[in-house]
Amino acid sequence: MELPRAAIDHLLDNWPVARLATLRADGSPVLVPVVFARSGGRLWLPVDGKPKREHAEGEVPELARVANIRRDARVSLLLDQYESDWAGLWWLRLDGTAQPAGEHAPGFHAALGALLDKYPQYADTPPFRPGAPPTLIAVSPRRTTSWAASADVVDFLS
Amino acid sequence: MELPRAAIDHLLDNWPVARLATLRADGSPVLVPVVFARSGGRLWLPVDGKPKREHAEGEVPELARVANIRRDARVSLLLDQYESDWAGLWWLRLDGTAQPAGEHAPGFHAALGALLDKYPQYADTPPFRPGAPPTLIAVSPRRTTSWAASADVVDFLS
Repeated sequence: MELPRAAIDHLLDNWPVARLATLRADGSPVLVPVVFARSGGRLWLPVDGKPKREHAEGEVPELARVANIRRDARVSLLLDQYESDWAGLWWLRLDGTAQPAGEHAPGFHAALGALLDKYPQYADTPPFRPGAPPTLIAVSPRRTTSWAASADVVDFLS
Repeated sequence: MELPRAAIDHLLDNWPVARLATLRADGSPVLVPVVFARSGGRLWLPVDGKPKREHAEGEVPELARVANIRRDARVSLLLDQYESDWAGLWWLRLDGTAQPAGEHAPGFHAALGALLDKYPQYADTPPFRPGAPPTLIAVSPRRTTSWAASADVVDFLS
């Protein structure tokens, strides 16, 4: 069964983690876990200072996920939680497009505020990559799809 | 930093959930959570009897993820766990190709045994979709990529 709108809104405002699929240059899919906040009808993903894969000192190459969406904006974002009780399983998927947003992009500052509010971890982690221009990724959902294994899940999430 | 081989093997044998990205007919990426078991150097995903999105009575349409890999075998599979302590974050990604495997495919029975051993939930859930031919999805990894936020994670997982 599908999740009701109230449960979807609750998850988009509060769930701490999602998985993001983008497309490589050759069209193959690639996945990373992401944090996100909802602001102004879009979901915003930081390109933050959590340690990334190593790069040579002095270089701060653009993250692959950012290069990917510049080339092809199509993304899929999945929220779910695994439970050993399979009657408790659910997922929520947003398919849409993503754009890199610099600090002068509309909605940037509200989105940054939403991320800092949602994640107190940003007290200790820079919200942007040191040495790189401040960037967020804005995901515009085109289609929302959801599934729950049982009515109990729907009650629990609503 | 990367995860050591022992941690990767431990996760591939024991971690209960992954997220699978496949490609739709139009080339856009699409995500679902999956359970999996490792057998014979491949990861095997069930097409099981957990409730799926509704379909008209009598019809058992092929799952989108199966139709997708028949058309384009390229997939990405991600294992990770969210922690509010970001020093505890890690992920493990397998990029490769996937094939649907029927019950006469090489490796099918060993893989089914591995799934039934790993998931006692199959005592209550059919391992195949009722009314559809028994099918597993076999993922052959081509590239393994991993990341851990700190050496503590690496120690914990190893």
